[in-house]
Amino acid sequence: MTFDLSPLLVEDAVRAALAEDLGRAGDVTTQATIPAGAGAKVVIAAREAGVVAGLPLARAAFAFLDPNVGFEAWVADGATVAPGEIVARIEGSARAVLSAERVALNYLGRLSGVASLTALYAARISHTKAKVCDTRKTTPLMRAFEKYAVRCGGGANHRFGLDDAVLIKDNHIAVAGGVIPALRAAKAYVGHLTKIEIEVDTLDQLGEVLTEGADAVLLDNMRPDDLRRAVEMIGDRMVCEASGGATLDTIVAIAETGVDLISVGALTHSARVLDLGLDIGIS
Amino acid sequence: MTFDLSPLLVEDAVRAALAEDLGRAGDVTTQATIPAGAGAKVVIAAREAGVVAGLPLARAAFAFLDPNVGFEAWVADGATVAPGEIVARIEGSARAVLSAERVALNYLGRLSGVASLTALYAARISHTKAKVCDTRKTTPLMRAFEKYAVRCGGGANHRFGLDDAVLIKDNHIAVAGGVIPALRAAKAYVGHLTKIEIEVDTLDQLGEVLTEGADAVLLDNMRPDDLRRAVEMIGDRMVCEASGGATLDTIVAIAETGVDLISVGALTHSARVLDLGLDIGIS
Amino acid sequence: MTFDLSPLLVEDAVRAALAEDLGRAGDVTTQATIPAGAGAKVVIAAREAGVVAGLPLARAAFAFLDPNVGFEAWVADGATVAPGEIVARIEGSARAVLSAERVALNYLGRLSGVASLTALYAARISHTKAKVCDTRKTTPLMRAFEKYAVRCGGGANHRFGLDDAVLIKDNHIAVAGGVIPALRAAKAYVGHLTKIEIEVDTLDQLGEVLTEGADAVLLDNMRPDDLRRAVEMIGDRMVCEASGGATLDTIVAIAETGVDLISVGALTHSARVLDLGLDIGIS
Amino acid sequence: MTFDLSPLLVEDAVRAALAEDLGRAGDVTTQATIPAGAGAKVVIAAREAGVVAGLPLARAAFAFLDPNVGFEAWVADGATVAPGEIVARIEGSARAVLSAERVALNYLGRLSGVASLTALYAARISHTKAKVCDTRKTTPLMRAFEKYAVRCGGGANHRFGLDDAVLIKDNHIAVAGGVIPALRAAKAYVGHLTKIEIEVDTLDQLGEVLTEGADAVLLDNMRPDDLRRAVEMIGDRMVCEASGGATLDTIVAIAETGVDLISVGALTHSARVLDLGLDIGIS
Amino acid sequence: MTFDLSPLLVEDAVRAALAEDLGRAGDVTTQATIPAGAGAKVVIAAREAGVVAGLPLARAAFAFLDPNVGFEAWVADGATVAPGEIVARIEGSARAVLSAERVALNYLGRLSGVASLTALYAARISHTKAKVCDTRKTTPLMRAFEKYAVRCGGGANHRFGLDDAVLIKDNHIAVAGGVIPALRAAKAYVGHLTKIEIEVDTLDQLGEVLTEGADAVLLDNMRPDDLRRAVEMIGDRMVCEASGGATLDTIVAIAETGVDLISVGALTHSARVLDLGLDIGIS
Amino acid sequence: MTFDLSPLLVEDAVRAALAEDLGRAGDVTTQATIPAGAGAKVVIAAREAGVVAGLPLARAAFAFLDPNVGFEAWVADGATVAPGEIVARIEGSARAVLSAERVALNYLGRLSGVASLTALYAARISHTKAKVCDTRKTTPLMRAFEKYAVRCGGGANHRFGLDDAVLIKDNHIAVAGGVIPALRAAKAYVGHLTKIEIEVDTLDQLGEVLTEGADAVLLDNMRPDDLRRAVEMIGDRMVCEASGGATLDTIVAIAETGVDLISVGALTHSARVLDLGLDIGIS
Repeated sequence: MTFDLSPLLVEDAVRAALAEDLGRAGDVTTQATIPAGAGAKVVIAAREAGVVAGLPLARAAFAFLDPNVGFEAWVADGATVAPGEIVARIEGSARAVLSAERVALNYLGRLSGVASLTALYAARISHTKAKVCDTRKTTPLMRAFEKYAVRCGGGANHRFGLDDAVLIKDNHIAVAGGVIPALRAAKAYVGHLTKIEIEVDTLDQLGEVLTEGADAVLLDNMRPDDLRRAVEMIGDRMVCEASGGATLDTIVAIAETGVDLISVGALTHSARVLDLGLDIGIS
Repeated sequence: MTFDLSPLLVEDAVRAALAEDLGRAGDVTTQATIPAGAGAKVVIAAREAGVVAGLPLARAAFAFLDPNVGFEAWVADGATVAPGEIVARIEGSARAVLSAERVALNYLGRLSGVASLTALYAARISHTKAKVCDTRKTTPLMRAFEKYAVRCGGGANHRFGLDDAVLIKDNHIAVAGGVIPALRAAKAYVGHLTKIEIEVDTLDQLGEVLTEGADAVLLDNMRPDDLRRAVEMIGDRMVCEASGGATLDTIVAIAETGVDLISVGALTHSARVLDLGLDIGIS
Repeated sequence: MTFDLSPLLVEDAVRAALAEDLGRAGDVTTQATIPAGAGAKVVIAAREAGVVAGLPLARAAFAFLDPNVGFEAWVADGATVAPGEIVARIEGSARAVLSAERVALNYLGRLSGVASLTALYAARISHTKAKVCDTRKTTPLMRAFEKYAVRCGGGANHRFGLDDAVLIKDNHIAVAGGVIPALRAAKAYVGHLTKIEIEVDTLDQLGEVLTEGADAVLLDNMRPDDLRRAVEMIGDRMVCEASGGATLDTIVAIAETGVDLISVGALTHSARVLDLGLDIGIS
Repeated sequence: MTFDLSPLLVEDAVRAALAEDLGRAGDVTTQATIPAGAGAKVVIAAREAGVVAGLPLARAAFAFLDPNVGFEAWVADGATVAPGEIVARIEGSARAVLSAERVALNYLGRLSGVASLTALYAARISHTKAKVCDTRKTTPLMRAFEKYAVRCGGGANHRFGLDDAVLIKDNHIAVAGGVIPALRAAKAYVGHLTKIEIEVDTLDQLGEVLTEGADAVLLDNMRPDDLRRAVEMIGDRMVCEASGGATLDTIVAIAETGVDLISVGALTHSARVLDLGLDIGIS
Repeated sequence: MTFDLSPLLVEDAVRAALAEDLGRAGDVTTQATIPAGAGAKVVIAAREAGVVAGLPLARAAFAFLDPNVGFEAWVADGATVAPGEIVARIEGSARAVLSAERVALNYLGRLSGVASLTALYAARISHTKAKVCDTRKTTPLMRAFEKYAVRCGGGANHRFGLDDAVLIKDNHIAVAGGVIPALRAAKAYVGHLTKIEIEVDTLDQLGEVLTEGADAVLLDNMRPDDLRRAVEMIGDRMVCEASGGATLDTIVAIAETGVDLISVGALTHSARVLDLGLDIGIS
Repeated sequence: MTFDLSPLLVEDAVRAALAEDLGRAGDVTTQATIPAGAGAKVVIAAREAGVVAGLPLARAAFAFLDPNVGFEAWVADGATVAPGEIVARIEGSARAVLSAERVALNYLGRLSGVASLTALYAARISHTKAKVCDTRKTTPLMRAFEKYAVRCGGGANHRFGLDDAVLIKDNHIAVAGGVIPALRAAKAYVGHLTKIEIEVDTLDQLGEVLTEGADAVLLDNMRPDDLRRAVEMIGDRMVCEASGGATLDTIVAIAETGVDLISVGALTHSARVLDLGLDIGIS
């Protein structure tokens, strides 16, 4: 499977990040010390093992400052790399390469960090049918990219925003007057291509959901025993997601209960950056 | 000391993040299940100990969707909070509060995470004169906020972009033909209110820097012995920054060499989110 | 049921439309002939029967040019109005009211036109279980508003964009190698909160869809006989949408086949504006 | 005569429309089912007779998603096409073509609809000296394009906004204290390159306009008899526009009174889309 | 007569200028040295005689950083002020006032400079019927404001852009094949509310213009003798503008030839700033 | 030394300026009179002596409207040109060249005007060690370009905004409680790469600054005698800037006191445009 990023989102994001870094006066160090005509050949290499994500953003960063830059990806997004492995080779204006370096690495390192952490979670539960999935706990203005990185790391995507699916939570249930009125209100409101998921805390609530019907149910903070019982109750009538408390340590037990999905906020809110370096030779 | 964030940056960022989350159709769940007139009283509370940063962004998120919202911060940015401690109390339209919740918490959690990690580093070296400082390894489009969070956590800020200070690195030195020509090129290029820092790998290079003069020197990846010798050579002639390899484990040894600053990319590139929750009562 | 529009979308759209109309020099006629201090009391009234939609946009147009304007809606979006019936009463600066009039009416008239046409279709088939629904054949940059108007008129919304649901069409099927591989590719690609609909031209294709499973099926350009047979085959296993050829004349026969939804591009691509007028008294 | 559209307006509009359709996750259907390397050869063909307008916008939509796309227009904007006639041929990445299709057709269909309706009106009155012209009753954010489409259909353009010409209406006259003070205020206010038109309801008012002088007069909702008398009074002293009540049925009688222009809001506010289809062959 | 500026243009421009000045880190000096709660009372006073223009922009600059600021204009735009005269009094947050000061004064000083220079030209020719007018030689992104300042100084506005009037210059005439074909092409192209002016270098060309007709003629770089003859030829058949070579020294002779307008690029391209100062008392 | 402008800033600025000039309807004169296929060869030439600045902006203006335009600069930014000397040669679509001409010349003329005035000041004091430098009294939204022009003219740049350096002025000192507390507050607030300058009015204040230390001192409105004494007091302990009252007449006496820098607001706030013309031959 290939992974895709809208070129419009990539361009807007990279341009904004370059503007953030270049400010009003531009890269004063490079302008002072590097001749306008100098060229550079560069490699981006992994300094630790991980999964790469974000190459289109890195490519765009260099291309904005040198439209004729050569950018050769040696691996594709989603590839696992070993320490020292070359990720991409760039050739172009030395000024452009040096000025774009940080923006390129900031995107690539962050997204590869998300992909790498996702891959770690995914590996733990690969013997089960469960998949790890992301949440809306993403970095502001980075959601499309972070969710792409989750796919690169072998995870699944939850909804992209408040508008592309219904997720009825405890507060909605409380105001709506219960599980059944909340589900009915949602069904009356949305079109036929919008899915409806509902959060439950107890097996009693789950019973109500099964009576009324929904596309998916989120089992919130249940212990493995209850999860297992919930899975049995649900059968194949709806998708079943476990949420809350999943860490690299606990996820195996959760996955083995038979749930379909395990959502993990940490994939996007607490991933470390993947250590990538740019080694430059000025030509 | 108080900390400041440009209201223009806050507004632009929060508006963009809300647009990202609300998409074209808005918060369909809330619209379906929460009556337009319902009110909500909410608290944001810490679920673990840490340092708070980002309250102006959280406030703005709620205010965009309900201009009459009441937002009372119970602590200020930079305050240390205990698990369970209330950070802010919000009262307003239930729809607005529920729809803005995730954007508010995404900013507040991330920035508090940066502040908390910074505070951890700062605490380790509080017996020395060294301060921990940030880098340009920030999240794209979040730099001003992440650097603010570093200040809230007791750290210092390095430059904000490529344009507000010169930082001559190894590649610049190589092309410019050495430390001395690079420093001279920089001095000739920039105005009198732009500082110049230069990276050195060896004590020999440091000697050249001391001969030519600069505002600051970055001692890159030197071991404590060499750092100590460098500190002696420098005296009080320029600011002296250690860079590379600083972790919570190694930073004490680095700080005790007498350097002024220790830059730590992890403050912004590898901070976990601080766990904060919003507890809601619909009125 | 109430209907909602994101205030962020409303503000951005109305501001852009005002900028389009005011240009560089502003409303030169009004500036030349109306004193800065004059006030105006105005009503917007329907000049023909229809369903109103777009009041938040009209309100915003006046409020941008006079933040203290009074705007009283006498009916709510979704209301049916008779010829001559007052829709809203506005009181404020005469200059602001005259300068914003056209933008306010352009939005209100267009969206009321969409709502009114939708209501016409909906009325024809109200004795059946079928609902009329919109398409992506919307005016560029007006989609969220036009889909809102469809809801105001009693219609249902299809997907909002290419990203919030899968709709596999004939070309996708052709390249993917058939109905079944296309459905499998889609299921493998999207998350659990993204629905999948597939277009079929024949009952044979429908059989394949029923074998493989999907959330909805679009029966493209089928005659009532085939639609009826398709409805029987489908039972309640998936949502069933008829598409193609629905006009005010033909829609009854389509609806009586038992389909759930009938999509009608004309709702948004060929609605006439609803005739609304602004009657002004300068105070 | 050739027709022109500012490339800046085209780019901004098409990019915004693509962003509206692609959302955060892009065209998930196409990404799931169409291989990244597949090519497509496509024709856009008319499914009914009409006048084409908007080809530069359609071209731009495809080019944004595939910079190397080949787009060959087989007719020019302003051309009359027969049912089945090919309008353009496109060759490029299958993913790009499928993802851009709807935006391209939404622009092309809408603008061709405006051009076609304009051509219908123009044809009715081609035996007179009158021309049909548009109004400011345009779709928000589409004005430049819709007015371009009116030109493609053989119509004339009225002013583009509130700032490029003066149009004194009844309310302005009422506040300014009559036709003569209103005209004098306008002449004192604007520069020598801004034209002044004034609306009159009666022949008495027209007399005052002729006394004071103006560039054009709008005869509002007058019956043919009065229009004829007005035309006689005016002679060739100013341009004379009839406004109000012009339909395909009534326009001949209005045109035969000898007026120069007949403005018709319906050209832009009530045109149906022209039915155009895209037929694809994946290569 | 009052003068007007679109509030939308004012807001966008002032916000962009504040962003330009505040950068990423904001006003670091003020944040470091002025307590968050301190108030300030300030006056803006003229340090030399001149005509004021731009108060709405100055007001907006302060209001962006302190929504509760009090801004009292003591004179109106267009007023003549003496050295030392107070222009406005501002009271609000000391931080906001100090941070917005430069943006407010940059707009106010520049626009007052344009108004003052215009007033100087206007005074020289007040005994004639001629008016001084501006050109498109304006500062990029400041045109609407600079043209407003010209009106404040007693001058007239030429067209605002390439699109709101036709101005046929020598190159257009050359390509079109002469004065008459150029005028005919223009008349065929534009609507009835677009004026047409044409530049002529000789009295022969003027003869052709008078034959074919136009709304205005620009007499380019003619000496007073020729201007006088041209004025006689034209009579009151069209507006007559002299262009080229007008300085404070030469303008009287030009005006006394009887032309209607004298365009002076220097009004906007070579005005000095009016010296205005902000005197502050921190409360 | 070469001078640099961020390509991102150039593109955004030129695009906005073209949009300002082209409005909604585009260059109606050119569209009416110049055939779509006509080519043009053009030179931009100096009509008076001066220093050129802004060629990248001029190039961008033409390239936006004709991506295939040929733009050959015959001199570089910073070059001195004689009257009549050719600055650049442009070849491309006649429509594009004529439509972009004014935007290109508006940028080029203004920035060359700034560079030329700077060069005049610089020449006066070339026998001293002093350099002339700019201020923040720049045209809103033109700061980066005007400061670039100052460099092209041989001047130095002061800070670019409120955030890239500290400049403590009299009001800051007053509120902070004196020179020493103000300096200490600033040092505590900013990072190690932010310079601190402080304004003093008296030699007593200067003494305090020398005691506490700073990077630079601004000697405000001091007479040459006091400046000389100040220079002696300062020695080489900090950079020393004279501000206030510098004109082409007075600057020699100021420079000969031995100060390092003389800031002159007039460089950017009162430069006349450099007279440049575009001579066209349609091919």
